[in-house]
Amino acid sequence: MNFKQKYDSFADLVNKALEEYVTEKDTPEGTIYKAMKYSLMAGGKRLRPVLSLSVCEILGGEPENVIPYACAVEMIHTYSLIHDDLPAMDNDDYRRGRLTSHKVFGEAIAVLAGDALLNYAFEIMLEDVLKKGGDTGIKVMDIVAKAAGVSGMIGGQVVDLESEGKGIPVNILEYMHRCKTGALIKASVMLSAALCGTNKKKEECLEEYAEKIGLAFQIKDDILDVEGDFKDLGKATGSDAANGKTTFATIYGVERSREILTEVISQAVYAVKREFGDEAEFLVNLAEYIASRES
Amino acid sequence: MNFKQKYDSFADLVNKALEEYVTEKDTPEGTIYKAMKYSLMAGGKRLRPVLSLSVCEILGGEPENVIPYACAVEMIHTYSLIHDDLPAMDNDDYRRGRLTSHKVFGEAIAVLAGDALLNYAFEIMLEDVLKKGGDTGIKVMDIVAKAAGVSGMIGGQVVDLESEGKGIPVNILEYMHRCKTGALIKASVMLSAALCGTNKKKEECLEEYAEKIGLAFQIKDDILDVEGDFKDLGKATGSDAANGKTTFATIYGVERSREILTEVISQAVYAVKREFGDEAEFLVNLAEYIASRES
Repeated sequence: MNFKQKYDSFADLVNKALEEYVTEKDTPEGTIYKAMKYSLMAGGKRLRPVLSLSVCEILGGEPENVIPYACAVEMIHTYSLIHDDLPAMDNDDYRRGRLTSHKVFGEAIAVLAGDALLNYAFEIMLEDVLKKGGDTGIKVMDIVAKAAGVSGMIGGQVVDLESEGKGIPVNILEYMHRCKTGALIKASVMLSAALCGTNKKKEECLEEYAEKIGLAFQIKDDILDVEGDFKDLGKATGSDAANGKTTFATIYGVERSREILTEVISQAVYAVKREFGDEAEFLVNLAEYIASRES
Repeated sequence: MNFKQKYDSFADLVNKALEEYVTEKDTPEGTIYKAMKYSLMAGGKRLRPVLSLSVCEILGGEPENVIPYACAVEMIHTYSLIHDDLPAMDNDDYRRGRLTSHKVFGEAIAVLAGDALLNYAFEIMLEDVLKKGGDTGIKVMDIVAKAAGVSGMIGGQVVDLESEGKGIPVNILEYMHRCKTGALIKASVMLSAALCGTNKKKEECLEEYAEKIGLAFQIKDDILDVEGDFKDLGKATGSDAANGKTTFATIYGVERSREILTEVISQAVYAVKREFGDEAEFLVNLAEYIASRES
């Protein structure tokens, strides 16, 4: 299997599980399931759960042990996009080429669909913990909860919001990215390390890898916002500049941002090769994919 | 101690714990803590955690075992109010006589403050589970998660939203209330039963009590929306009629709604007296307080 085939096989596993987790129901509140599913199955790349599954593989773990938590992270990621797209936030009409939740279901249902996905993420993790027993599931839930909350993703979103229209120094920009995008990406890697078990050294390498690709992901996002196509991205570009946001591109310019991106990716690759050697091939390709993606 | 003194002593315990859980921080995302705290400490009645603590008392449990979960429920209740008040939802400028979150912090932060409180509820429950170990905390978290999610509160909010401007039959109205308000009130009672331990019979009585006071709470809310004062309620009245909502008051009229309320309260009182006798005094008074409150 080449990289793309392998990526797709992981993503298929995730898509199948997500389809099963959220089924439409003919109940008075049926709309909420439709709205949850609309955004959850909107053609996302599944980067976070693919990361979880690929780390599971190099650690020799069982994918079915990882799936509930990987899907929970994808639900949390999706809820954050729904709320981010709201008129009061980024006011985006399109995401991945499709109308955003509030354009299809109205703002009120979009708010609730986001709330529902966040809550449901915990419901499915709890279901797994109750079924399997033991402490590991709790620890993993704690990793995910902290990554998603005020000391992680939500904290980063707040810094992002408050920095609009005013310049922020590069250390705050990096702090923001580490929280906003980095925390959940890191959690996707670390949840597999916790669930599958590994030694301290390998765990540290995975942690470093996760931090670097999280940063790389955001730098690439900033570059794409300047240079990407609506066709590829499925959403408007140039919105960062229009919103007066500080990004890697506004601080360093696109050319230097590309160089930083290349450096960060080689650090990620080095970290993971150090302990895993050739077995890290997929994770190496994944890091390079993050840097080269067009959407 | 009379009823009011005892109620206040439970509420004080909750307020103190909530103050400790959410402290303002001088970090780049500091606004989110301010916004969380603003709504959390906005003078709520603490009905749900007071219920948890009073059930804990008649079961001979330790309040400190119940506090984290009772506070989590109050955080979930508060997040739902913040999102409910948003312009896209009920569009309320005031709650408990104070400006709502989005009027003070803007809509974007209000959305995130709600998200943050929901996420934080799980963070504090997880912290307790990790500290104490054992299965009970997980089961309680599961009770809370289900009550807050699509099969509970969020489901009820969706039915509420979708029934605006059109009449709904009484069975759907009751279903909506059971989910929207009832589920979290019931969880407040049942989480204490699970944490403190009890027998099947007592648990069933508590469950019946919880269901009845949840329903009573909503009937009273519907009556207050017609007859309450802004002064007492701290929010606009008559909004149900203005929004074309079906309520107990619109279906049965205020007089008949009062009678139903009295019936439901006596069923709650009967349920709890059956197994607990005189020890149920506070819970009996609490049921009557729900029916007689002016806000």
